[in-house]
Amino acid sequence: MRQIKHPRLEQIELTDLMHALSDPARIEIVRCLARARRPLTCSEIDIDRPKSSMSHHFKILRAAGLIETEIRGKEHFNSLRTGELEHKFPGLVKTLLRLMLAA
Amino acid sequence: MRQIKHPRLEQIELTDLMHALSDPARIEIVRCLARARRPLTCSEIDIDRPKSSMSHHFKILRAAGLIETEIRGKEHFNSLRTGELEHKFPGLVKTLLRLMLAA
Repeated sequence: MRQIKHPRLEQIELTDLMHALSDPARIEIVRCLARARRPLTCSEIDIDRPKSSMSHHFKILRAAGLIETEIRGKEHFNSLRTGELEHKFPGLVKTLLRLMLAA
Repeated sequence: MRQIKHPRLEQIELTDLMHALSDPARIEIVRCLARARRPLTCSEIDIDRPKSSMSHHFKILRAAGLIETEIRGKEHFNSLRTGELEHKFPGLVKTLLRLMLAA
């Protein structure tokens, strides 16, 4: 099965996470995933942006280590790497998600 | 006395803070200020970067609302806006500073 590459936890830098969250569209994607509490396909994440720009945003979120994407059949399922990130950056993602969900 | 403009707390966006911290040099500046626990002049913040790029980094940190700069005589004194930011984004700056100081 085709797989998508993800950075390992030790490769993830704080600056990458910050860059990934420096764009309102990417914050929207993360908020959707946090609300859903389950993996979402790209089409389930409806944030009213052109499909081409969405691929770009997913790529940046994935490269930063914020989300992981699993291919099942023809669908791409995206989820937050909250547990792993909590291990490397204690408290950070929890705090960010709390602020994003409150906004 | 000449003053430097700063964004008001209500103008500060999460994406601006994230952008400001997406660069290793700017994280270094913030770490210096957090360690010092007092306002520092630009020359006291010695992070081995060209002076021209330092001005750029200070400008971005200031525009994002992360630091404030006060002019006293010929010196520019920089400090973190931790207290204000804690009010708007509870827990965020504390968590980020803890992670930066531990790194």
